[in-house]
Amino acid sequence: MAKYEQQRNFLKSNFLEFKHIKTDKLKGLPQPPIVKSFNSTSLIIDLPMISRDVVSKENIYECINDRRSTRFYSDESLSLDELSYLLWATQGITSMTKNGCTLRTVPCSGATHTFETYLFIMRVEGLQQGIYRYLPVEHKLVFMFELDKIDQKIDAITLDQPFVPNFVKKASVMFAWSTTPYRSEWKYDISAHKKILIDVGHVSQNLYLTSESIGAGACAIGIYDQKLIDDILELDGDEEFIIFMSAVGKKRE
Amino acid sequence: MAKYEQQRNFLKSNFLEFKHIKTDKLKGLPQPPIVKSFNSTSLIIDLPMISRDVVSKENIYECINDRRSTRFYSDESLSLDELSYLLWATQGITSMTKNGCTLRTVPCSGATHTFETYLFIMRVEGLQQGIYRYLPVEHKLVFMFELDKIDQKIDAITLDQPFVPNFVKKASVMFAWSTTPYRSEWKYDISAHKKILIDVGHVSQNLYLTSESIGAGACAIGIYDQKLIDDILELDGDEEFIIFMSAVGKKRE
Repeated sequence: MAKYEQQRNFLKSNFLEFKHIKTDKLKGLPQPPIVKSFNSTSLIIDLPMISRDVVSKENIYECINDRRSTRFYSDESLSLDELSYLLWATQGITSMTKNGCTLRTVPCSGATHTFETYLFIMRVEGLQQGIYRYLPVEHKLVFMFELDKIDQKIDAITLDQPFVPNFVKKASVMFAWSTTPYRSEWKYDISAHKKILIDVGHVSQNLYLTSESIGAGACAIGIYDQKLIDDILELDGDEEFIIFMSAVGKKRE
Repeated sequence: MAKYEQQRNFLKSNFLEFKHIKTDKLKGLPQPPIVKSFNSTSLIIDLPMISRDVVSKENIYECINDRRSTRFYSDESLSLDELSYLLWATQGITSMTKNGCTLRTVPCSGATHTFETYLFIMRVEGLQQGIYRYLPVEHKLVFMFELDKIDQKIDAITLDQPFVPNFVKKASVMFAWSTTPYRSEWKYDISAHKKILIDVGHVSQNLYLTSESIGAGACAIGIYDQKLIDDILELDGDEEFIIFMSAVGKKRE
């Protein structure tokens, strides 16, 4: 099936030659920043301390058993405590290594964590609608900007989602993860990219399970308008671009 | 950074043209089998019913908080109940749809589940060492064959794992997931492959968390000898090949 040969090869571990590649790290080039910087004059929002009290379904067996991709949401907003918990579970830092890497609630090859978390906030208590970014080191949010006609833009970004049309804008929040691939390429060169995709799956699964644990549901979104969302978020589309998204909202009874 | 242009593009959702592609599904070509068949004269091993009693750390918050990639294991074996739980959590079927798709404990784009689970069993109570495959529909194992010098072969497959040399063979079991990409290509054509990698991350994260919940630890393995493991498992390397692996063993005290 030569039609898909190139794509299939990307799924493989054909990295025996990697043993002999002199990576930028081995060449002595400086490590890129481990997180994206932010403008300290921006509006910074403190997130509440992570509280286990928001978890209504604690049992991991039940969370795994009951999780379903959820495309129908109630009108209930997420609380800021709940959003804080979801952000912690997907990118929260649990410790730092001696050499300045972050260890997080999600595994990542070589602790090279290449993701930034952007949030399209529709209905979260205490937050105005708009675009935010998570600051994992500080466990805070940066308010980036209001987005005029956020509903229509989400429809356009998510290509109107044919299966359940236009469900994403009815969620409370849409997570959109970017990758800055050089954080991993610096260390892993050509073997970085396969791992980056698997790692965003690790992140997405924690969002699915912790959403389930608070009476909410998630639905991952793999097909979207790459250029449109990168433009909206002011990402250059090469050094940083959106890699995956997931909508979260409270479940209908 | 044109050096990585092709790889970076693979991480993106440049699928606007996908809307106009006539997929094999739309062409009316038959759907491929949703699971791999097995020889009914093989040795089939019943797995115990999934038991929540094996879970010693039930709380999802604690499982997420405490999870670490684990490369040092105790001598303790996994029980068959524990293995049954890990297999359920990673590929277990929780319901069937009207059109014959499986819904599982892990999300998957369009329920196209392309994975098969192969197990390199080192130390699991009641199972002889060797290579097995999980049958998700039956929740059983097929014993495939003994593997002479399994330790050395795992070292070779995992390229001796430079970070903690040769740790994988000291695990109780190595999960090795294959993909049969046509199960997804049939429906998603060129947009299948990115999703397949993210989906194996979903699977891997459930293995991390459920391992943590039974006092064990997992370590995902992204770089391995593709041809060697495909040859050992008698996979053709094109229609089916290994895509990711993870070692699991009880933690040292």
